[in-house]
Amino acid sequence: MKYFAGIDLGGTFIKCGIVDEAGNILQKDQIPTGKERPYGEIAADMAALVRSLAARAGIGEKELCAAGIGAPGTVNSARGVIVYSNNIHWKNVPLGGAVRGALGLPVFVTNDANAAALGESFAGAAKDYENSIFVTLGTGVGGGIILGRKLFEGNRSAGAEIGHMVIRAGGEKCTCGRRGCFEAYASATALIRQTKEAMKKDPASALWKLCPDPEQVNGKTPFDGLRLGDKTAERVIRKYVGWLAEGLANLANVFRPDAIVLGGGVCAAGDALLLPLRRKMNRMLYGGTTYAPVPIVIASLGNDAGLVGAAHFAQQRSGN
Amino acid sequence: MKYFAGIDLGGTFIKCGIVDEAGNILQKDQIPTGKERPYGEIAADMAALVRSLAARAGIGEKELCAAGIGAPGTVNSARGVIVYSNNIHWKNVPLGGAVRGALGLPVFVTNDANAAALGESFAGAAKDYENSIFVTLGTGVGGGIILGRKLFEGNRSAGAEIGHMVIRAGGEKCTCGRRGCFEAYASATALIRQTKEAMKKDPASALWKLCPDPEQVNGKTPFDGLRLGDKTAERVIRKYVGWLAEGLANLANVFRPDAIVLGGGVCAAGDALLLPLRRKMNRMLYGGTTYAPVPIVIASLGNDAGLVGAAHFAQQRSGN
Repeated sequence: MKYFAGIDLGGTFIKCGIVDEAGNILQKDQIPTGKERPYGEIAADMAALVRSLAARAGIGEKELCAAGIGAPGTVNSARGVIVYSNNIHWKNVPLGGAVRGALGLPVFVTNDANAAALGESFAGAAKDYENSIFVTLGTGVGGGIILGRKLFEGNRSAGAEIGHMVIRAGGEKCTCGRRGCFEAYASATALIRQTKEAMKKDPASALWKLCPDPEQVNGKTPFDGLRLGDKTAERVIRKYVGWLAEGLANLANVFRPDAIVLGGGVCAAGDALLLPLRRKMNRMLYGGTTYAPVPIVIASLGNDAGLVGAAHFAQQRSGN
Repeated sequence: MKYFAGIDLGGTFIKCGIVDEAGNILQKDQIPTGKERPYGEIAADMAALVRSLAARAGIGEKELCAAGIGAPGTVNSARGVIVYSNNIHWKNVPLGGAVRGALGLPVFVTNDANAAALGESFAGAAKDYENSIFVTLGTGVGGGIILGRKLFEGNRSAGAEIGHMVIRAGGEKCTCGRRGCFEAYASATALIRQTKEAMKKDPASALWKLCPDPEQVNGKTPFDGLRLGDKTAERVIRKYVGWLAEGLANLANVFRPDAIVLGGGVCAAGDALLLPLRRKMNRMLYGGTTYAPVPIVIASLGNDAGLVGAAHFAQQRSGN
């Protein structure tokens, strides 16, 4: 059996796991990122964590083949460089090389959403599918493109920015500078904004009882309102699902993947989101009933998707 | 040297060429499609045309390895079946099998836009690029996705419907049933509609002199008006280029291809289209100046793209 280290670098924690070639996690742990430190210290901590987990798992030096890192921001995976991370305030940091130096193993770096996409493809909700598109609904809309069970990253790994596909030209302002991006309509941030706007227009809404301070609205609030039968909550969700369906139908028409995998906090809503979403998106697909619908499934690895995917990225890229 | 037959099936003509493994056309010819005939007759004509062209080219029986067909409509390339063609009024026609039966060679079928995309990738404007997206601006907006120099077709070859990516949800009605598709804004048909609408609003426009009968407006008309310094023509083109840029920027953000190849009649406008388009699209890309711009190039094989691509499709799929 061959083993790989998977590292999920976040702004708060570094999560790490020792993963076998079948995708099972043997040992995992996390340490604080301490993101203000020089990157060399962070790299040294990563290497030490990998070594201690490998020892705990009883893995011999030669059985651990490579390490993979999923990092926030734009990553040039061919060079192992974090080109830009808003989250960790890094610019052109050669993280891959630093960890390789400290660990003495090949190290491969990709974007965190890409790592999660690969994790779900290898061992999670998309494991029965050759081609899948992973979409996370969080602060933004992130994504990963899996074709032939491998990550498609585009030129200099700059692709898969699916949140920055415009679905309504001239519409809502996006953080990227364009107007009308998918992210500006379908992220958790967008759902929260849409909920607050609807509350302002309807002082009688039950949403006010659930959340007297609009600043406390989160992605769960409108779904809680829906369960209470609140019409305003119902309308917010109907519209949100409509925007989400537009973006997913675009991806389905462009890729016709075997499945779309949804991740991120908004998915906790489960069927209240998924059932109307499937219905709406499939009505939008080109070719109508000529083809089977594109399945939409919920990510199943949770917080482990990133480290399992990072380990599998190392497995694929190291040729194991 | 190995040789392949490439067939470009259109509603009016069947074009055929004998192509070598480097993409050179040795012989080519065309015959009328006679699209109302039973498909078996069309398949027999295709086989006869391939045989006669191979004889003319002096190709021995064993040197011709396989034939490829680019066909209009939705094609299931794994099964060699034309699932639906609005153009030839076919539904579930097993064209690949019929031609294979008549020709005695392996036959591979794909969609005509896909074939053109592969032709441009193999021997045309995209031949220096691993990954390219081909976009044709014609009656509709067609496309082909080339990844690692191969066609990406999606599940049951139903992908690459890039014209049916919504760029303005709730906008112009599209023939597919959705509103706001890229095709409804960026096809030649859309440009003609936009030109006519602008003419109606401006009776003083020089476009009326160029084209006194609005029914005669074509994709060239607004560019002719631009050359005359007509403000209305200028505005039409500025808006059209804006829509086109939105769709291409979406594809660039999703795929980050090495290049985008534009084909179709509208491209005859050359730099009047291309220069403002490059400027606008590159301003819309995610990551701004972090990365080099995505090149936009004009297709270079013209009417031969389909048959060169169909021949190359046969080369790749037959494992040669």
